Amino acid sequence: MHTLYPEKSSCRQTRSETGHFLICCDADSNIRQHGERYCQTLFHVSCVSCSPCAFPCPYLVCFLLSPGRAPDPPLSPGRAPGPLNFFLGGGTMAPDPSWPPESPDPPWPPECQTLFHVSCVSCSPFSRSSRCLWMISVPLQIHSVTFPLPLHMSEQQLLKPDEWSYCDYFWADRKDPQGSAIISGFEVLLQKQLKGRQMQKEMAEFVRERIRIEEEYAKNLSKLSQIPLAAQEEGTLGSAWAQLKKSLADEAEVHLKFSSKLQSEVEKPLLIFRENFKKDMKKFDHHMSDLRKQLASRSAAVEKARKALADRQKDLELKTQHLEIKLNSKIEEDIKKARRKSTQAGDDLMRCVDLYNQSQSKWFEEMVTSSLELEHLEVERVEMIRQHLCQYTTLRHETDMFNQSTIEPVDKLLRSVDPARDRELWVREHKTGELRPVDMDI
Amino acid sequence: MHTLYPEKSSCRQTRSETGHFLICCDADSNIRQHGERYCQTLFHVSCVSCSPCAFPCPYLVCFLLSPGRAPDPPLSPGRAPGPLNFFLGGGTMAPDPSWPPESPDPPWPPECQTLFHVSCVSCSPFSRSSRCLWMISVPLQIHSVTFPLPLHMSEQQLLKPDEWSYCDYFWADRKDPQGSAIISGFEVLLQKQLKGRQMQKEMAEFVRERIRIEEEYAKNLSKLSQIPLAAQEEGTLGSAWAQLKKSLADEAEVHLKFSSKLQSEVEKPLLIFRENFKKDMKKFDHHMSDLRKQLASRSAAVEKARKALADRQKDLELKTQHLEIKLNSKIEEDIKKARRKSTQAGDDLMRCVDLYNQSQSKWFEEMVTSSLELEHLEVERVEMIRQHLCQYTTLRHETDMFNQSTIEPVDKLLRSVDPARDRELWVREHKTGELRPVDMDI
Repeated sequence: MHTLYPEKSSCRQTRSETGHFLICCDADSNIRQHGERYCQTLFHVSCVSCSPCAFPCPYLVCFLLSPGRAPDPPLSPGRAPGPLNFFLGGGTMAPDPSWPPESPDPPWPPECQTLFHVSCVSCSPFSRSSRCLWMISVPLQIHSVTFPLPLHMSEQQLLKPDEWSYCDYFWADRKDPQGSAIISGFEVLLQKQLKGRQMQKEMAEFVRERIRIEEEYAKNLSKLSQIPLAAQEEGTLGSAWAQLKKSLADEAEVHLKFSSKLQSEVEKPLLIFRENFKKDMKKFDHHMSDLRKQLASRSAAVEKARKALADRQKDLELKTQHLEIKLNSKIEEDIKKARRKSTQAGDDLMRCVDLYNQSQSKWFEEMVTSSLELEHLEVERVEMIRQHLCQYTTLRHETDMFNQSTIEPVDKLLRSVDPARDRELWVREHKTGELRPVDMDI
Repeated sequence: MHTLYPEKSSCRQTRSETGHFLICCDADSNIRQHGERYCQTLFHVSCVSCSPCAFPCPYLVCFLLSPGRAPDPPLSPGRAPGPLNFFLGGGTMAPDPSWPPESPDPPWPPECQTLFHVSCVSCSPFSRSSRCLWMISVPLQIHSVTFPLPLHMSEQQLLKPDEWSYCDYFWADRKDPQGSAIISGFEVLLQKQLKGRQMQKEMAEFVRERIRIEEEYAKNLSKLSQIPLAAQEEGTLGSAWAQLKKSLADEAEVHLKFSSKLQSEVEKPLLIFRENFKKDMKKFDHHMSDLRKQLASRSAAVEKARKALADRQKDLELKTQHLEIKLNSKIEEDIKKARRKSTQAGDDLMRCVDLYNQSQSKWFEEMVTSSLELEHLEVERVEMIRQHLCQYTTLRHETDMFNQSTIEPVDKLLRSVDPARDRELWVREHKTGELRPVDMDI
C-alpha cells in the first residue's frame, strides 16, 4: 500500500475514535496499473458520502471483478455498487475476521489474505481527469500488537533484506486455514518445523519399505540361484550356465548389500532427530504465547488507562466550562483536583504504555531470536535430507555398476561356448568304443 | 592296446575254442610307461603256467596297485599274485560282466570301464632283461557285433579324425551305470539327446522363475512409488523427492520390461523344440534295436551253422579213419555222403555269415547316419542355448543401463536443492506480515 499512496499530496491521516487510523486519498487512473502489479491486499470499500455512488471509479470496479485484469467494457455508469471489494498493492496487513468475503466469485489471488475497510468519502462522476476520494481505515493495533502508521511503513527496512528470513515475515497473526482459530506467525513457523519432521520420518519410512523390497528380491534371486536347474549341463555350455547361476547369486548379494547400506547410511540417519525436538518446539510455543498473553493484558491496561484519562479530561473540561460560567473557589478546588487526577491518569497511562512497550520489546526480541533458530533448524533439515537422498542415489548407482560386473564373467564364458569342444569332452567321457565292426570271416 | 603290442615280435595270435582270440606277448619294462600314458582299459590277469608266480613282473604289479604310479619299493619277490588286475593302454574293448572288480581298493581311473582276461602263460623270475609272457584273451564278437583282430586294430582310421564325431566312438555296448542292463552305444547318444532337452527345459524353467521374481519386484517398487509418503515436502527439496519417487516408478517399469522381454526373447524360444522330438528319438531307438536284434539272430544262426559244420567235419573225419582201417564201398558211400553234407554245412555257414554281414553293414550304415544326425541336433541345441543366454545377459545389461538413467534426473534435482530458495518459496506462500511492531505512543 505504501508504494501506491504515500506520495499523493491529497492523502490525509487522522486517528479515529475506535483506535483505527483513517487514510484518505485520491484514486486516480494510476491505481489500476499499480493494483495489477502489487495486488496482494484485499480492501473492503464502501462509498459513505455519496451512497449510492452514481459513477463509481471504473478502475476500482475493475479490481473488484477480476484483480489484475480490466473488464472490457467497464461496468456501465449508474450501477449502485454498495460495498465494493477491491485489491490494492503493498505490505501485508492484519487479517479481518470477516474474511473470506461472502461472494467467492472473483478469483482472489491465493496470497490475498487481509481485508480492510475502505470508504469512499467524496465521490463525483468519473471522468479521465476527475478524482475519487477514498477513506481507508487501517487498524493501528491488531491482537494487542502495535503496528506503525501507514505513512511510516515505508520507513521500515527488512532486518535481513534479500534473505527471506523467518524473522522478517511472521509478525502478524492469521486465521488457521483449517479452522476459524487465529494462529500467530510464530505458530506458523512451528507448524512448519513439525511438518518438516513428519516429512523426514515419512522419507525414512519410504526407504524402510525399499529396504524390505530389496531384501525380498535378494532372497528370491539367491534362492533361485541355488535351485539345481540344468545343473547337469556339461562342457563349455555347462560352465557358462553354472556361471550364470553363480552371477545370479552375486546379483542377490549386490542387492542385499544395497539394502543393508540403505539401512545404515540412509534410513537410520534420517530417523535421527535433534534430541528432544518436540519438547523444544513445545517450549518455544509456550514461551511465545506467554509473552503474547502478557502483551494482551498490558494492552488492555493501556486501553483502560486511556479511557480513565479520557474520563478525567472530560471531567476537567466540564468543570472548566462550569468555572467559565460561575467562578468560585470550590469549583477552582474541584478543577485543581480534577487536573491532578487527570495528570495522574496521564501518568498511569504513560506507565501502562511503558510496560506495554517493554512487553512488546521482549516479544519482539524473542520472535527474532527464535525464528532465526527455527530457520537454522530448517536449513539443517533440508541439507541433511539432501545429503542422504544423494547417498541413496549413490548406492543405487553402485548397485547398477556392481550388477553390470556380475554379468561380465557370464558373457566371457558364453563367448567361449563351443559345441565341438563340448562334443569332444562328452565323447571322451562317454564313448563306448571306437573300434568299428568288420565283416565276419568263416 | 594296439599302441603297446603290435610291434612286439614275440606276439602270437590264435583263435580259442570259445570264439575268443588269444594274444600272447612279452611284458617288458616299456609297459609301465605306456600304461601310464594310455591307461584306459582294465584287464584281468592271472598267471596260468607258473602259479604261484615266484617273481611277478613288478611293473604289472605296479599297475595293479596304483594305475599310473609305481609303488616304491615294488612288491617283494615271492608273493603269490593269483589273478591280478592291471591297466593297459589302447583302444576301448567290450565290457566284461564281472566288472566292477571285487576289491574296490585301487583308485581306478574313472574312464576305465572294460575288463579283459589276461593270463601269464610263461613266467620267469624278473630282472631287467627278463620277459614275462602273458596270454590275453580278447573276445572277437561282443553282443553279436564282430570286431577286428587286435593286430588289425591299428589299421582302422577314424571316420572323422580330430572331430570327436559321434559316428566314431559309440560302436561298443556298455553297462548302464545306473543298473546292470547293457545299453548300446547308440542308446548312450539318445540319452544324451533326451538329457539335453531336459536341460533346455530346466533353463527355461529357471528363466520363468526369474521372470516371476522380476514381476514381483517391479510390482513392489511401483506400489511403493505410489504411496504418498512425504508428498507434502515443498520447494526444491520437494521436487527432488517427487522425482525420486517418479524414478522409482521408472525403475519398476524397467524391471517390468526386463521380465516381459525375458519371456518373449529367452523363455519362449528355449521352450520351442524340434517338433516331434521325443517321437523322433523313439523311432531312432526302435529302428536301431530292431537292427541289433536281427544281427543277434543272424549271429546265432552263424554259430549254429558253424557247430553243424564242425559236427559234419568230425563225422567225415571219423568215417575217413574207418575207411583207413577197413575199406569198403558202403563206407566209401558214407564218406561221400558225409563229405557232401560237410560241403553243404560249409555252404550253409557261408550263407549265414553272408546274411550276418549284410545285417551288420546295414546296422553300421544306420549307426553312422543317425549318430551324425544326433550330433547335428546337439550342435544346434548348444548354439541355440548359447544365443538365448547371450540375449539374457544383453537384457540384464540393458536393465542396468536403463536403471542408471532413472537416477540421473534425481541427481540433477538433488544438486539444485537450495534451503535458501526453499525458504523464499515457503515464506512467500506462508508469510503472515512483514510489518514489524513499533512502540505505542500515548
